[in-house]
Amino acid sequence: MNKNRADRVLAALRDMGISQMLIVDPMSIYYLTGVYNDPHERFFALLLKADGDHKFFLNNLFTIPQDVGIEKVWYSDTDPVMGIVAKYLTKDAALGVDKDIKARFLLPLMNMNAAAAFVNTSLAVDTTRGMKDEEEREKMRVASDINDKAMAKLKELVHEGVTEKEIADQLLKIYLELGADGFSFDPLVAFGANAADPHHGPDNTVLKEGDVILFDVGCIKDGYCSDMTRSFYYKTITDEHKEVYETVRKANEAAIAKIKPGVPLCELDLTARNLITEKGWGPNFNHRLGHFIGLSCHEFGDVSSVNKQEAKPGMIFSIEPGIYITGDTGVRIEDLVLVTEDGCEVLNHFPKTLEILG
Amino acid sequence: MNKNRADRVLAALRDMGISQMLIVDPMSIYYLTGVYNDPHERFFALLLKADGDHKFFLNNLFTIPQDVGIEKVWYSDTDPVMGIVAKYLTKDAALGVDKDIKARFLLPLMNMNAAAAFVNTSLAVDTTRGMKDEEEREKMRVASDINDKAMAKLKELVHEGVTEKEIADQLLKIYLELGADGFSFDPLVAFGANAADPHHGPDNTVLKEGDVILFDVGCIKDGYCSDMTRSFYYKTITDEHKEVYETVRKANEAAIAKIKPGVPLCELDLTARNLITEKGWGPNFNHRLGHFIGLSCHEFGDVSSVNKQEAKPGMIFSIEPGIYITGDTGVRIEDLVLVTEDGCEVLNHFPKTLEILG
Repeated sequence: MNKNRADRVLAALRDMGISQMLIVDPMSIYYLTGVYNDPHERFFALLLKADGDHKFFLNNLFTIPQDVGIEKVWYSDTDPVMGIVAKYLTKDAALGVDKDIKARFLLPLMNMNAAAAFVNTSLAVDTTRGMKDEEEREKMRVASDINDKAMAKLKELVHEGVTEKEIADQLLKIYLELGADGFSFDPLVAFGANAADPHHGPDNTVLKEGDVILFDVGCIKDGYCSDMTRSFYYKTITDEHKEVYETVRKANEAAIAKIKPGVPLCELDLTARNLITEKGWGPNFNHRLGHFIGLSCHEFGDVSSVNKQEAKPGMIFSIEPGIYITGDTGVRIEDLVLVTEDGCEVLNHFPKTLEILG
Repeated sequence: MNKNRADRVLAALRDMGISQMLIVDPMSIYYLTGVYNDPHERFFALLLKADGDHKFFLNNLFTIPQDVGIEKVWYSDTDPVMGIVAKYLTKDAALGVDKDIKARFLLPLMNMNAAAAFVNTSLAVDTTRGMKDEEEREKMRVASDINDKAMAKLKELVHEGVTEKEIADQLLKIYLELGADGFSFDPLVAFGANAADPHHGPDNTVLKEGDVILFDVGCIKDGYCSDMTRSFYYKTITDEHKEVYETVRKANEAAIAKIKPGVPLCELDLTARNLITEKGWGPNFNHRLGHFIGLSCHEFGDVSSVNKQEAKPGMIFSIEPGIYITGDTGVRIEDLVLVTEDGCEVLNHFPKTLEILG
């Protein structure tokens, strides 16, 4: 158990008036205990109690280190697992539950009246995870450094006749050679009009002159995620596409320039969105400006028009404005940033000036 | 919408006395609508109504084909999404919910009293998905055929000094060259004592004489999953390890020989388990015999000592007995089988006779 992190979560729960919480997000459990386990469809949970009588619920099929400093409660595939969990809950107190706990585990607890109430208290864990400690910041720097290097190698794979999938299929090897442990998400490679879909997955589309080449990629290193997008053009670029690109770049840079402790996150979104809207592409920027990131690629917290939360030192999130024009092109430029005491540190260093490849 | 499949789900719901159900498993939605979308942390659901007034809830960031034959309800990242969903529910009727719906979506509906009760009705969808139609059976055959071929290629990668990770890292390329679309799960490659952990992930362990070499691998092809395990030995094998291997092989074959419509699935587990227990390794077979598989690698339904459900034509599941001896070795032999009208069709054809490699 990482006592410092657990104490921060328990303090947040105390502020919510909650004395027990069932955490099921494997990444939150890893964050608190150092034990990572992917339970697939099985139940895997950490019960945090205000009195310190924490419990770890484990299927006997999971392989867990001998000593994790928390009492383990084992069950097998044939046990009525939620009945076992209920025995350890304080029946007359509210139970805080992870936002990710699924109905098949939550409804049985409710039907057994295993607690006085069931409340989503994930904020206690998520806001703690949202403030990276020094060890985490360093790991995030390393993961983004690998991502910068991978982007340079991706660029070299661009040539006449190449398909999106051919480039994407080479990325895992690039990451592994650079020392990463794998993808933080399935890479997005999009050419031309395909890039107008912010989530377009790589297919057999062949690169052609005048296409945008969008790479949205990330790796995991030592458990921490990177995530960066760069957009290039192939051989030629129209004046309008150049204007699209420069508008997105300015939106990215203007938002980053505003980051410092105390700035409401919605103001960052507004800064980027205003710049894009002024050019007439407001409706073409159809997503939030950014998301928090760390052990998971999309962590709780976002940089959106409705999030009034203020930036605080230790937060790490993406800044990723985009303009998407159906049937034509799409440009997105994304960096990860760490809020510092007096501004921010941009974790990505791959250039953002427009590059025409080929 | 696949009317035949939706009608089967609605009939099952009717039998449960349920007139509305919210389905969130992306694979179940794909199964019913042909639309696949990975919503990540966003809300994506299909509302099935007994009166046919189905609704599709979509974030405006999702890319969905123009016409899906179901009315779409769009929301944006800044909308109160569950408030929107609540408007389409029949307040005075119970709502069937997907077993996978998360607390952050379910608790708000409950707090709004958006339905008269909330019941996990996933069985209606899952038992329908559990009976594969002819189109699905053929896709499952193709995916397993690729897996057989990939296993032959994996075997060729075994050589002096190789590590688990070096072999595992080559598998994606093998699958892609064989026409698969990707992994159905992260491949397991385990040498020697590492194989004693049924879920050991590939690391830098170097192969040595006398080691077991366990490959538990699967690919996706046209949306359908394969999953097979074979265990080899390297250069030499002790008499005890040979006994372990032969016991597992016999358990696999004896269970398969029993499969036909009407046999309770627990009897298959028992058949394999008895064979292993008779040899004194009962406690070393610490998991169920098998799991259902299809669009997802682990679907609802299992072949375990507590599942009294009877085998029915169209079911596809794994038969995967294993013996795990901590600090020593582990052997598992897994095939996928399709229950037919009068027995079963084994979807894997890679040999199971003991092979000593190197």
